Amino acid sequence: VPSPPSPDVAALAAIVGPDHVLVDPEVRAGFEVDWTGRWRGTSAAVVRPGTVDEVAAVVRWCARHDTPIVPQGGNTGLVAGAVPSAGAVVLSTTRLDSLGPVDPVAGQVTAGAGTTLERLQHHVAGTGWMFGVDLGARAACSVGGMVATNAGGMRVLRHGSMRAQVLGVEAVLADGSVVRRLEGLVKDNTGYDLPGLLCGSEGTLAVVTAARLRLVPEPADRIVVLVGLPSLEAAVDLSARLRAEVEGLDALEAVLAPGVTLACEQLGLAPPFATEPAVTLLVEWAGRGEPPDALAALVGDHDAVAADDPGGRERLWAYRERQSEAIARVGVPHKLDVTLPLARLGVFAAEVPAVVAALWPHARCHLFGHLGDGNLHVNITGVPPDDKRVDEAVLRLVVGHGGSISAEHGVGRAKAGWLALQRSPAELAVMRAVKQALDPRGILNPGVLLTAEG
Amino acid sequence: VPSPPSPDVAALAAIVGPDHVLVDPEVRAGFEVDWTGRWRGTSAAVVRPGTVDEVAAVVRWCARHDTPIVPQGGNTGLVAGAVPSAGAVVLSTTRLDSLGPVDPVAGQVTAGAGTTLERLQHHVAGTGWMFGVDLGARAACSVGGMVATNAGGMRVLRHGSMRAQVLGVEAVLADGSVVRRLEGLVKDNTGYDLPGLLCGSEGTLAVVTAARLRLVPEPADRIVVLVGLPSLEAAVDLSARLRAEVEGLDALEAVLAPGVTLACEQLGLAPPFATEPAVTLLVEWAGRGEPPDALAALVGDHDAVAADDPGGRERLWAYRERQSEAIARVGVPHKLDVTLPLARLGVFAAEVPAVVAALWPHARCHLFGHLGDGNLHVNITGVPPDDKRVDEAVLRLVVGHGGSISAEHGVGRAKAGWLALQRSPAELAVMRAVKQALDPRGILNPGVLLTAEG
Repeated sequence: VPSPPSPDVAALAAIVGPDHVLVDPEVRAGFEVDWTGRWRGTSAAVVRPGTVDEVAAVVRWCARHDTPIVPQGGNTGLVAGAVPSAGAVVLSTTRLDSLGPVDPVAGQVTAGAGTTLERLQHHVAGTGWMFGVDLGARAACSVGGMVATNAGGMRVLRHGSMRAQVLGVEAVLADGSVVRRLEGLVKDNTGYDLPGLLCGSEGTLAVVTAARLRLVPEPADRIVVLVGLPSLEAAVDLSARLRAEVEGLDALEAVLAPGVTLACEQLGLAPPFATEPAVTLLVEWAGRGEPPDALAALVGDHDAVAADDPGGRERLWAYRERQSEAIARVGVPHKLDVTLPLARLGVFAAEVPAVVAALWPHARCHLFGHLGDGNLHVNITGVPPDDKRVDEAVLRLVVGHGGSISAEHGVGRAKAGWLALQRSPAELAVMRAVKQALDPRGILNPGVLLTAEG
Repeated sequence: VPSPPSPDVAALAAIVGPDHVLVDPEVRAGFEVDWTGRWRGTSAAVVRPGTVDEVAAVVRWCARHDTPIVPQGGNTGLVAGAVPSAGAVVLSTTRLDSLGPVDPVAGQVTAGAGTTLERLQHHVAGTGWMFGVDLGARAACSVGGMVATNAGGMRVLRHGSMRAQVLGVEAVLADGSVVRRLEGLVKDNTGYDLPGLLCGSEGTLAVVTAARLRLVPEPADRIVVLVGLPSLEAAVDLSARLRAEVEGLDALEAVLAPGVTLACEQLGLAPPFATEPAVTLLVEWAGRGEPPDALAALVGDHDAVAADDPGGRERLWAYRERQSEAIARVGVPHKLDVTLPLARLGVFAAEVPAVVAALWPHARCHLFGHLGDGNLHVNITGVPPDDKRVDEAVLRLVVGHGGSISAEHGVGRAKAGWLALQRSPAELAVMRAVKQALDPRGILNPGVLLTAEG
């Protein structure tokens, strides 16, 4: 391991206090590897500022010394966007965990970047409002990381992704200056949308230190229905009719056969249908009272099971939510998070197995995801972990159908080399120009999203 | 009138055809003044390209000759953002009026920048979907102008502003290169959000030539309720409870006394209440069947009148929608479109008359607007049209309460001089850096949004 240039620890300790500059290799190690263990880096130090002013001072110090900064929240990302490059300072946001009062009139709250999603959820619970984005990583993922990656999850269909929740940010720019807009104005047409630009910028344009978040009304009642369908096209069509006719849909998720059977076999679940249909569609409605009649009318022609009590809903969700767990029992998967135009989803899903089999005849493809958003998680087992050809083959198929190589996970380091598959030279030129404008020295998360070479 | 430098008309005619380069002063005049007649400019020529390639060629020609370009759609803007600076080429988008098929599965459509909102609405009608943004200027305003100004209107509460409808854009950059992303992906986390950045950029970063737009389900049933409330605080509180408890609110609008009486007197409307309350709140619900019981329960304690038939709903809307018309009968108003944090709305509204009276003791203040968004339209009559002190005094009051000097109209030329009231030096520096990055020669709509001086 090459020894990275060591930053002046004393100078950083003078800013954040000696307890919050971590240089011990064993302590640092936890910040240098992503949670999957697949991506590793090395850092010069881990710095944990406790205030926005400390963040600004750290950024100014790094800018003066041309030291790269890698912002890191809960370190739950899936594309290695928070794994440090050699010699970088990891700027951990964990201590920026303030939570303001819930404004019950506006339905808003201000959260520090280091606040975990779970703490935010508990903080809001019981106010009649809830936060509109929910993720499996809720116990560890942070508000700042969710902003940086424009996180999605299970409720995008209803409430949009993180960008739709962020009414304003506080952030430290690459020169150490601070922008702060936390008044929670729903409408503000006074210039370029900086919060929207920072959402999804993966720490490459600024260090987000806090966000003003909109909340959504907490529904009193929920119902989950599993529907068996003969094809992905049929599932897409039913989803479209449900979206058009049923107010209050919270989720439209799908598992393609034989995923439900796999979950039942591997996890000991009871099969929901006598024979697994080609597509198992999970529909969740949330609101007050009974769901609209259109839900039953549209679902009525198909095999379906429903539950409106918490235990029953959880049992039906398990076939979808535990797909990753079931797949992990049969192998270490390649995981690709992609979106397709809805009209291309069926063709794409039919083509994936052949594309994979051409490279690895004995590989298995597992498809499931957020059908309502056109977002599939393509998991492939039976392929060596380091093989990149299969990933690239599937991503090229996605791009050929007009899709996106990253629906909700971002680009990070993992997909930076493939960004040009998806984005045109003109689009990449715009991104590079924006990066150059906001971070001319290139100290913020270098190598993430945009590669170093032209 | 100084004679502007004349661009090479022959070169532009070779691009778009001689019929589409307008140089006759009388013909040009209609493009050189805003619809209110308050803002005037002069142009060297008006160019009407018919394709994105023609737009690109015009932009490249202008870039080579350092000729400013002012994009113009329906010319219905309220802040003079489409009024040309001397010597500029007005790039009229009216011929870019293509409309793609409605995708009934995705609920999406692609529209050329020059498509009017009304044509878009007619195009979508009958498909079960509708476009989520609606404005009074629908007959003339264009999709491109709505993107450029991040237009708001009556339905922001339910569906968000224009930025929330735009799933992708086709645009010509300042160097004549074209970016195009019209596949309609709901989720796409592959880099900086260019469509979101262009929304609200007022033609200063690129010329938008088409947009992929999301549609929303068309509700079958609607009900409008007018509610009389004793104060703006009470109206804000009731609005918050309605937002939290009633799924399917389409509008929460308010008229402050004596606006309803003024409309009745000036326009011959029948008063809805025996005595005008301090605030008349208009609540619209839309969905299928009956509104949730919570609507009647929350409104029940107050004076209220309701209508669920089209004629009745229109009569109730008239008290709110015809405010501008009624005010115009008593004088030429100063019009200020502002947002406040909801918690400051009542204090702000109470202070406005005193701030205005300190300058003009006999002026009248008329307040109404989109209460659910914290957005008030402050109209002031009895002040000379050219007086800017009263505008600035009200805008300073807005900023003092943490509000925005432009909620939904944008900055344009009209408010460019006041942008620094609202935006910090660090925020302005970011905007200037982004502008410099995307338009280094400064040819796109100079003087709009950002002033020429530092």
